[in-house]
Amino acid sequence: MTTTVGHLINGEMRDDAARTQDVFNPSTGEVTKQVALASVETVEEAIAAAQAAFPAWRNTPPAKRAQVMFRFKQLLEDNADKICAMIGEEHGKIAHDAMGELQRGIENVEYACGAPELLKGEHSRNVGPGIDSWSEFQPLGVVTGITPFNFPAMVPLWMYPMAIACGNTFVLKPSERDPTSTTFIAQLLQEAGLPNGVMNVVNGDKEAVDVLLTDERVKAVSFVGSTPIAEYIYSTANAHGKRCQALGGAKNHAIVMPDADMDNAVNQLLGAAFGSSGERCMALSVAVAVGDKAADTLVAKMRAGMEPLKVGAYSNSDNDFGPVITQAHQQKVNGYIDSAEADGANIVVDGRNPQIAGFENGFFVGATLIDGVTAEMQSYQEEIFGPVLQIVRVDTMEEAMQLINDHEYGNGTCIFTRDGEAARYFSDNIQVGMVGINVPLPVPVSYHSFGGWKRSLFGDLHAYGPDSVRFYTKRKTITQRWPSSSMREGVSFAFPS
Amino acid sequence: MTTTVGHLINGEMRDDAARTQDVFNPSTGEVTKQVALASVETVEEAIAAAQAAFPAWRNTPPAKRAQVMFRFKQLLEDNADKICAMIGEEHGKIAHDAMGELQRGIENVEYACGAPELLKGEHSRNVGPGIDSWSEFQPLGVVTGITPFNFPAMVPLWMYPMAIACGNTFVLKPSERDPTSTTFIAQLLQEAGLPNGVMNVVNGDKEAVDVLLTDERVKAVSFVGSTPIAEYIYSTANAHGKRCQALGGAKNHAIVMPDADMDNAVNQLLGAAFGSSGERCMALSVAVAVGDKAADTLVAKMRAGMEPLKVGAYSNSDNDFGPVITQAHQQKVNGYIDSAEADGANIVVDGRNPQIAGFENGFFVGATLIDGVTAEMQSYQEEIFGPVLQIVRVDTMEEAMQLINDHEYGNGTCIFTRDGEAARYFSDNIQVGMVGINVPLPVPVSYHSFGGWKRSLFGDLHAYGPDSVRFYTKRKTITQRWPSSSMREGVSFAFPS
Amino acid sequence: MTTTVGHLINGEMRDDAARTQDVFNPSTGEVTKQVALASVETVEEAIAAAQAAFPAWRNTPPAKRAQVMFRFKQLLEDNADKICAMIGEEHGKIAHDAMGELQRGIENVEYACGAPELLKGEHSRNVGPGIDSWSEFQPLGVVTGITPFNFPAMVPLWMYPMAIACGNTFVLKPSERDPTSTTFIAQLLQEAGLPNGVMNVVNGDKEAVDVLLTDERVKAVSFVGSTPIAEYIYSTANAHGKRCQALGGAKNHAIVMPDADMDNAVNQLLGAAFGSSGERCMALSVAVAVGDKAADTLVAKMRAGMEPLKVGAYSNSDNDFGPVITQAHQQKVNGYIDSAEADGANIVVDGRNPQIAGFENGFFVGATLIDGVTAEMQSYQEEIFGPVLQIVRVDTMEEAMQLINDHEYGNGTCIFTRDGEAARYFSDNIQVGMVGINVPLPVPVSYHSFGGWKRSLFGDLHAYGPDSVRFYTKRKTITQRWPSSSMREGVSFAFPS
Amino acid sequence: MTTTVGHLINGEMRDDAARTQDVFNPSTGEVTKQVALASVETVEEAIAAAQAAFPAWRNTPPAKRAQVMFRFKQLLEDNADKICAMIGEEHGKIAHDAMGELQRGIENVEYACGAPELLKGEHSRNVGPGIDSWSEFQPLGVVTGITPFNFPAMVPLWMYPMAIACGNTFVLKPSERDPTSTTFIAQLLQEAGLPNGVMNVVNGDKEAVDVLLTDERVKAVSFVGSTPIAEYIYSTANAHGKRCQALGGAKNHAIVMPDADMDNAVNQLLGAAFGSSGERCMALSVAVAVGDKAADTLVAKMRAGMEPLKVGAYSNSDNDFGPVITQAHQQKVNGYIDSAEADGANIVVDGRNPQIAGFENGFFVGATLIDGVTAEMQSYQEEIFGPVLQIVRVDTMEEAMQLINDHEYGNGTCIFTRDGEAARYFSDNIQVGMVGINVPLPVPVSYHSFGGWKRSLFGDLHAYGPDSVRFYTKRKTITQRWPSSSMREGVSFAFPS
Repeated sequence: MTTTVGHLINGEMRDDAARTQDVFNPSTGEVTKQVALASVETVEEAIAAAQAAFPAWRNTPPAKRAQVMFRFKQLLEDNADKICAMIGEEHGKIAHDAMGELQRGIENVEYACGAPELLKGEHSRNVGPGIDSWSEFQPLGVVTGITPFNFPAMVPLWMYPMAIACGNTFVLKPSERDPTSTTFIAQLLQEAGLPNGVMNVVNGDKEAVDVLLTDERVKAVSFVGSTPIAEYIYSTANAHGKRCQALGGAKNHAIVMPDADMDNAVNQLLGAAFGSSGERCMALSVAVAVGDKAADTLVAKMRAGMEPLKVGAYSNSDNDFGPVITQAHQQKVNGYIDSAEADGANIVVDGRNPQIAGFENGFFVGATLIDGVTAEMQSYQEEIFGPVLQIVRVDTMEEAMQLINDHEYGNGTCIFTRDGEAARYFSDNIQVGMVGINVPLPVPVSYHSFGGWKRSLFGDLHAYGPDSVRFYTKRKTITQRWPSSSMREGVSFAFPS
Repeated sequence: MTTTVGHLINGEMRDDAARTQDVFNPSTGEVTKQVALASVETVEEAIAAAQAAFPAWRNTPPAKRAQVMFRFKQLLEDNADKICAMIGEEHGKIAHDAMGELQRGIENVEYACGAPELLKGEHSRNVGPGIDSWSEFQPLGVVTGITPFNFPAMVPLWMYPMAIACGNTFVLKPSERDPTSTTFIAQLLQEAGLPNGVMNVVNGDKEAVDVLLTDERVKAVSFVGSTPIAEYIYSTANAHGKRCQALGGAKNHAIVMPDADMDNAVNQLLGAAFGSSGERCMALSVAVAVGDKAADTLVAKMRAGMEPLKVGAYSNSDNDFGPVITQAHQQKVNGYIDSAEADGANIVVDGRNPQIAGFENGFFVGATLIDGVTAEMQSYQEEIFGPVLQIVRVDTMEEAMQLINDHEYGNGTCIFTRDGEAARYFSDNIQVGMVGINVPLPVPVSYHSFGGWKRSLFGDLHAYGPDSVRFYTKRKTITQRWPSSSMREGVSFAFPS
Repeated sequence: MTTTVGHLINGEMRDDAARTQDVFNPSTGEVTKQVALASVETVEEAIAAAQAAFPAWRNTPPAKRAQVMFRFKQLLEDNADKICAMIGEEHGKIAHDAMGELQRGIENVEYACGAPELLKGEHSRNVGPGIDSWSEFQPLGVVTGITPFNFPAMVPLWMYPMAIACGNTFVLKPSERDPTSTTFIAQLLQEAGLPNGVMNVVNGDKEAVDVLLTDERVKAVSFVGSTPIAEYIYSTANAHGKRCQALGGAKNHAIVMPDADMDNAVNQLLGAAFGSSGERCMALSVAVAVGDKAADTLVAKMRAGMEPLKVGAYSNSDNDFGPVITQAHQQKVNGYIDSAEADGANIVVDGRNPQIAGFENGFFVGATLIDGVTAEMQSYQEEIFGPVLQIVRVDTMEEAMQLINDHEYGNGTCIFTRDGEAARYFSDNIQVGMVGINVPLPVPVSYHSFGGWKRSLFGDLHAYGPDSVRFYTKRKTITQRWPSSSMREGVSFAFPS
Repeated sequence: MTTTVGHLINGEMRDDAARTQDVFNPSTGEVTKQVALASVETVEEAIAAAQAAFPAWRNTPPAKRAQVMFRFKQLLEDNADKICAMIGEEHGKIAHDAMGELQRGIENVEYACGAPELLKGEHSRNVGPGIDSWSEFQPLGVVTGITPFNFPAMVPLWMYPMAIACGNTFVLKPSERDPTSTTFIAQLLQEAGLPNGVMNVVNGDKEAVDVLLTDERVKAVSFVGSTPIAEYIYSTANAHGKRCQALGGAKNHAIVMPDADMDNAVNQLLGAAFGSSGERCMALSVAVAVGDKAADTLVAKMRAGMEPLKVGAYSNSDNDFGPVITQAHQQKVNGYIDSAEADGANIVVDGRNPQIAGFENGFFVGATLIDGVTAEMQSYQEEIFGPVLQIVRVDTMEEAMQLINDHEYGNGTCIFTRDGEAARYFSDNIQVGMVGINVPLPVPVSYHSFGGWKRSLFGDLHAYGPDSVRFYTKRKTITQRWPSSSMREGVSFAFPS
């Protein structure tokens, strides 16, 4: 008899018995829980709770709202091990990786603690004679987040801490693959002193999503997922009068220049390509080596570096990375390796079908290195989202940059070099939103903002950081003039006797 | 034989002979010119010119780009009278009003002169040990503006000066009703030293618009017009991967409190309701009087204040306001007055069918005051866009605010009061983007941003001011680490002998 | 046998046996402790510790430094009652007042948690072709604070949390009157995980102060105290090459307009004039009533409001306020009341020599109201720093404002009115740094900055808030160009074969 | 009979016959004009004019004040050749150099055009329930600038355009060596539409300076000159209750790394060391070569690069640089070369006593290169302010940085390298305010701020750019609460019948 992960609505955990879905432990391949799939009515109830909580929360001073975030940070730190275990069991990532994810999430809570500073408007004295004008950034109302399986703790924390600190109320629809940690973390926020109804979680599938996208009480939607879904979310939300930011897929390239500190580059690439089984939208999945000499060195050192890598169950902290999320996804990743092979690429290290003793039914794919990849191959054009690093060989840096600029995605990219000029030229001209100089996962820190270009992000404003304050508020501009001076000038004759 | 207003493409004036449309002088009702209607090919040519000009313009330092704006301001001031005459002839507004419009437009050029300051990114030293991170706001590429007849000089100047100062190139599609001043002003920008192709103007109709909304080379669309068109523009542009801000209609209410300085309020309302024949998206079209005493005083003083108002041809500077834009629009405005009357409202001052000697065929509507309007009337629910002020009587300020918050539009609003508390409560709780305290047309100054709420604006970011910098640029975040210290530490043994 | 309050140097509590001074319980008049008075050598040791700790702390990423502040906030909240008891015993303020002080101090710690955001510099791409420029705000090194008796918890917390979050190391010299809570709080910061030597406390007198002002390793001095000492601190520190901000005395006026909500005004004035025995640099010590009618009402209502006020020992939470700090100060305050009486003012409520049962030797002064005060009186010109509110009667608002603008101090001020115009005129034209509209103690919140004008503050930058970030850092501007593209362009022929 | 350069006071040119001083043409050694030396009374008259103009100018909206700056920019560009000739005749710099100076000055005027944006304060809604708070940056009153001979156009333009745009009124005391261009430029500002008295110029010497430093109507002093005078100015101004920023001397080092693009480095050094005869506070006067190989290459290439350099009269545009400012200064510069020679340094290229045909009495010093300089030499320790580049040879980059960090000045510095890591380490750890990476004169652009560290600047805030807005304004923080809702809530029963 498995437990069922329910919904958090108006401060209480609810169940929605009608429909449920299996939750797997991808390390064993077994079903460990059920997740309730919210009905239309349940989602509407959550929206109603958020709507009801809005007026009082909006009028709570930002500094008071921030106090909840200070306590939330504390609770997240106190419960870190428990959360990481929840993540590991349902997602498969190893404890050290889950802790890294959680830490990044907590940093977003810390940033939300600064809401009083971040919500400041601009004040102008004398925009005209005796006329003042200023701007205020007011909350939107009920806002919602729809989040992916790969960061069940972090990606939701990109969204609701700042949304709530700005005075909004929230309905979160987490991934149905690994809902436990996400739901638990929301309960910690409740425990931190948030009034009922400000934060709500509905677990579910497309039925729930479509309510969030169309209900007119919802004012904004933040989404992270694949590009086709992101496009659907963006156009549907916009068509229903909501503001929307929808983050999609990626194909992140690293250029390896001949002058790079090659040991460092390889060291960085190992983590960036295979960490979390490559199931990160910032995973580095393509290395573009400039010149055959650099390429040959890179391949040799990568092969050596990959040898000690261990794939295995989340429960063993010595493992470097765990399984992928589902059996279907495992087969899809293997399929991309097959296709590269069929297209003539060279499978230098082959991670297909690894044997993990004691976890024979887990959804594992081993670290894979493919050389001789070209732009025409399907494995190059699409996002694999697995522990697969592909090497493309080019003759010049311009060629490498052209490759990146021609790709439909523009999430992250990196260059490995020692040369200041190459780094500057690259960062200036590359058509990608997040750029690393010798930093393979250039995820912006919490006080900057996260967002790709091209088909990696739909919307004007990036996720978390300063942009999120703008996304979760609307500008109001007040212009003020006091025409009558009767009280000020009149008192001399009016009152004294 | 009338002249034809053509297109400005790649620095040259072009004609597009295939299709043209009449341009009227609304003061006389006569056709005075033809405007060329761009074909798909012409628009694509303009886009291609903008595309070709982008790389060099993007790489021109912001401070150099700003120099063009400094010269543009100078040229606009030097040619002000000429521009105002062009506006008057085709739009109908009186010289003093045209000058006000132009002046507001010039202020946006002045703000664009500050591009080097406004484009600053955020730099963080040590986001981690030895790691720095910073943001850059890079131009989008080819961006476009689609603008309405009512401010042929100002609204385009809300858009392209900042877009261009940020490093973008531009294609403008002005209103086909009054294209002359808009096109001339663009030529002045060219004269100010802008490289060919950075600024382009295509005159036209929906055929041209649809190219701008769908061509994949266009990266962003700014639109100002009516709400139904704004929705179409917004959804179409978004569906084609462009960022978009689309400003729509309005129904701007003023609350007149019992303690208001009533002479001042009336004085302000006269200009705000009837100026430019009410053809402004910030025109004050509803006055909500709180208490019958305030209402009676307001109506009496308004009636008296309206008596000397003169409607007439643009060419006479003594006139207070001119004709509306077309005969069809004249009939539409009259129709709204008819409907109010039929619905039981009281036509206090009736501006239907004024007789203007010597301009019997002009599209005139006189200043109209209607009392006893209620929320159910069609004349209350829809935007009239004519010189008509409607009075709604309520008993309490809460009732007045509820009325405003229930209306589908949320562009501008105003309260007339002497009371600090009333003003603060109003500005905090009213669901409108631009709020005036004793300021009837709370159009933000150029260094703040313009935008309504609810169905008055589609998009996240407001027009002009700080928001426009964000709209016309995309954020790039760079994270940098220099792992190898070989040059720095190696030199001691490597070079000295 | 009393305990001795020692110094916190390099993470350890130290004693400096040579010289000590009595610490009193002002509620009983008894000596309860000794405070060690640091010798020159002890202070130099503290500076040396701070100097040694600087390089590593400077290089600690701001986000890591902020973690210490998050924990510090937690510890302050956990120890709040203990701290308030320490404050009460040595300063005399009642628990609710001590808690208010501590809360304000904690808010400064919260603001310092935002250091990563606040330390952002400005980045400009392409200040010239291929040239970038940015600013960094780097810490100064060893900085110091010298703080007064009246806020032993709050005023130090204005200074060192931000100074330390910015990467500086700190030496604090608290008031020798009530050093216990200040020293204890510093130990909590140590407990929060601060490396040894980053925060140091030296208790002492002028001997210690003079070392801090002249030692060349000290880079900046923050001071709060009386104006004559502030001037000495400012000129001495400047002459020794340090940056300095020195906050001095005050004489804060409230204008009471005839239209004020009088019950609210009186309610506010009671707390603002008598809270903490008036020993606050923001205490409201003068009420300027505009018109005799307002004045008469004000005096009558104040008299009634003062009746239930209870002065007494800190240990009874029912008391409204406690003793003043020393017997000498008690006599000084009484002397000002005597002088006002001698000068012809009307002592409406006389707080001299109250009898407090069981605390006959405490340094008490009761709440005192004086009417008919004029600008020539000594009691008007000087800061009393006691529970004394003086009423000045004027005929017009202009007269009231002139009075304020003519006073040598310009710390805080307030107007009580309902009228928006009067409030705006007042706030615009009054020569005072912190202005309240119906807010009698307009102490800026922690995310704005605190500072008076005229002889109330010496220095360019205000205390805490955004200004403190600038005060505790120095701007460095970097301009960068990478002239050679040999690595980038050279690789095509250099490496491929 | 020579002309006399007088004073600009209250919009009119005045003379002060009592005392005058010779103005030389340093290219010929001849006296060409007299400059009036203001008496105490004259300076007080200027201050009084500024004081009288302040209230109206302060109340002029910033956007209107900015209009004067837009016109001023235009007039400066229209009169550029005339101004450069004035500069050349009295200062000696060649037209291309004078034009560069003027251009930099104009950029400061452009920045001041952005005053409406730059003066924005911070607005916070709900700092407590129903309480708002915001900051305003208000002008100081009469402020003053005291400027050096070496940039008679640019340095004054660092100061008064922003000071005036912020709402202050100004009294400028230019250098008495070359007052003509400075005074003329101030007249252009008057011509641009500035009200009388807002800008005043007094020519003079220490008598005038001391009035400006002590008159209590003066609120702030900006100074640029030598360090001993800067210290005097700073301490005197502070002692008289003024805020002050005083910029002093410099000794700017370039580190030349072994990997530098050496041709580019030499090219840059030629201009940075000898341009304007080295009479710039940002002149590069020391090159620190890392490793003998780099040093030998540098010396050889510098020697070759210096060969074609032409020193001569300002009137010949083919010259590279002109004379130094006075005969006394010529002798002082020569004396430093003598002392280096006597101390054992190697005079590689000797510029002492060049023969300039036709200008035998001009104050010329030729470009001089000295190798083998060490830290003990007087020529290394002091600022030469002449066309002299000294080479110091070190073994490591750390040694080079230590040299710079040990010097008493910290104005500008530069590194020549291709290596990203070396550049980052240098810019992070060097104790200098303005840092160049391959940029030898890292003068910040007008929208950043200018300032050195250590004994190169006294004060908290740097010159021009964002810091100047803070320097020329004082923060006022307003906290507002409207306690009574009688107007808002009361109207329902009070008015309707």
